[in-house]
Amino acid sequence: MTIALTSELLDPSEIRHAVDIVLEDFLAAKSQSAPSPELAGIIDTLREFLFAGGKRIRPVMCLCGWHAARGRGDPRPVLQAAASLELFHAFALIQDDVMDDSAIRRGRPSVHRELAGRRPDGVRTAAGRFGANAAILLSDLALTWSDEMLHTAELTPDQLDSALPVLDTMRTELMFGQYLDLLAAGRPTGDVGQALAISRYKTAKYTIERPLHFGAALAGSGLAVAEACTAYGIPTGEAFQLRDDLLGVFGDPQRTGKPVIDDLREGKCTALMALAVLRATPAQLRLLRFMVGHPGIDEARADAVRAVLDATGARQETERMITVRHREALDALDSAPFPAPVTAVLRQLAHAVSARAV
Amino acid sequence: MTIALTSELLDPSEIRHAVDIVLEDFLAAKSQSAPSPELAGIIDTLREFLFAGGKRIRPVMCLCGWHAARGRGDPRPVLQAAASLELFHAFALIQDDVMDDSAIRRGRPSVHRELAGRRPDGVRTAAGRFGANAAILLSDLALTWSDEMLHTAELTPDQLDSALPVLDTMRTELMFGQYLDLLAAGRPTGDVGQALAISRYKTAKYTIERPLHFGAALAGSGLAVAEACTAYGIPTGEAFQLRDDLLGVFGDPQRTGKPVIDDLREGKCTALMALAVLRATPAQLRLLRFMVGHPGIDEARADAVRAVLDATGARQETERMITVRHREALDALDSAPFPAPVTAVLRQLAHAVSARAV
Repeated sequence: MTIALTSELLDPSEIRHAVDIVLEDFLAAKSQSAPSPELAGIIDTLREFLFAGGKRIRPVMCLCGWHAARGRGDPRPVLQAAASLELFHAFALIQDDVMDDSAIRRGRPSVHRELAGRRPDGVRTAAGRFGANAAILLSDLALTWSDEMLHTAELTPDQLDSALPVLDTMRTELMFGQYLDLLAAGRPTGDVGQALAISRYKTAKYTIERPLHFGAALAGSGLAVAEACTAYGIPTGEAFQLRDDLLGVFGDPQRTGKPVIDDLREGKCTALMALAVLRATPAQLRLLRFMVGHPGIDEARADAVRAVLDATGARQETERMITVRHREALDALDSAPFPAPVTAVLRQLAHAVSARAV
Repeated sequence: MTIALTSELLDPSEIRHAVDIVLEDFLAAKSQSAPSPELAGIIDTLREFLFAGGKRIRPVMCLCGWHAARGRGDPRPVLQAAASLELFHAFALIQDDVMDDSAIRRGRPSVHRELAGRRPDGVRTAAGRFGANAAILLSDLALTWSDEMLHTAELTPDQLDSALPVLDTMRTELMFGQYLDLLAAGRPTGDVGQALAISRYKTAKYTIERPLHFGAALAGSGLAVAEACTAYGIPTGEAFQLRDDLLGVFGDPQRTGKPVIDDLREGKCTALMALAVLRATPAQLRLLRFMVGHPGIDEARADAVRAVLDATGARQETERMITVRHREALDALDSAPFPAPVTAVLRQLAHAVSARAV
């Protein structure tokens, strides 16, 4: 389908729609040209995953960065570059679910669970391992195609030259963050600074700051714009992660699309949990140490943890931290050298990220 | 360390040496600039893995492709691009070992087994899962840094523009091949064509043809050179895989660096096995169906499988197929529009690949 771009692509819902068309066209072509029905089948699994949900935050941020740096000309190549971030994100999510063995994502079975159920007759590999391996390969394809989508976006050599280093940095930071997260998981400590440092890599940079930088680089931005993207992006991204931490424990699974027990079972090292450990009585601390990261955690035990998060004030303090960061992000926008319509959109996005109930 | 290039970098052992210097410099810098000791530690695991062995075939082929297409000028950017293929290959090997849960690689514990043993105190994740997850993230880093190494190689925009699509294709083909392999594993069939098709994606294209194309693209090659690379690369790569299949069952673990039982335990769908199935008596077929892909296979059972591979003539037929492909590759070189010194090196490489005992 050809995209008739009727706007400059600054409205988030228009960006989302346009990104979806780019993704669908790309994957439909991949599926149609697949060398075998088995391969077409696995590609369709990726399509279904991509269109089962997702807020397209990174492409939206990319377009915002482009506008923030006063990008000019046909936005189509930038749109395709932005969409490539979503394909990379599909890689990250599918792989993350394999690593955590999460059963549910976007309200449906996670990709590796889905693929486990489709193991061909006669394959001796256990279903769980088959599903995990197939999902890892599918995530690799998503990553490879994210690159291909970028390389075929008809960007100018100068645009590629400025944007590729941002992408390399973003990916390295995500993997560093994931690794530090893995090292910290299952060991609740009171180290709030450490939890925030991990979330800066895993979320603040990956979700907000670097996509903004990526878009700004595509527009040939200078240092002032990049710095303003950071000043806005880091607190917004931290607010996003802190909200995610709260939703991971207190959220409504009907709305978040994932079980509310997963974070506790994995023993994620969140600022929320670190605050609780810091403020816990000895009895509360024993409870946290026992429950958090316990593979057999159930709803009743999760409720006991929730009670501690409330009683210690960790939940309320996390809300306060979100408010502080939301305010910081808005202040950064006030002095950012961005065009006014971009500032308005980023203001809304900071609000949505801080307040989101989904 | 600065590389003093005293030659045009066509001699394979000189290429290997130069590639190792590029890799070591790159990873040493990554380790030194790591934001924390834990991250420096995992980066060093990647360095150790890279330097525990490896024939650097893909970088060698890349330089050969460059020379085949009469590349001119400073070979340093091409060398760095070639080295990036080795970092990508580290990604592929580490991830492959996780998926197969292979215990040994290059004569040492595989990366995920090594990392499982280094799980920090207090982490509740089971050691096996911790090791697998850490190895997956390390393989992601290798992949990301392979890209970064290429992007920072100071290639011209034209070079990048020609080479990136080759890389995208190579990666997609590898992942397609790995997925088809996964679907076929553990189900010995007599479909030699299918086994060869998988090996074409997984090995012939990935190891020989595409690295040649990649190097040729960096030299701005025309169609004739690319076609000659294919005419040489596919049979050479198939011979490589067929030799690998034989070594995977009959090889000397002291020389191959990996246990001789892994391929049988995984039930790899090789041409060797397909030939045996095709030619087996009913009793031999029952034995193959029972043993191949059996998680509990041991040396005695492996010996019984080996006896069938011999008795059916599958082993001898595989040797014959290698000879045919070796001959095809040499014939292709006779009519290739390559400079004579390149033809000579590729001739030696085809011989080494077909005959290799390691």
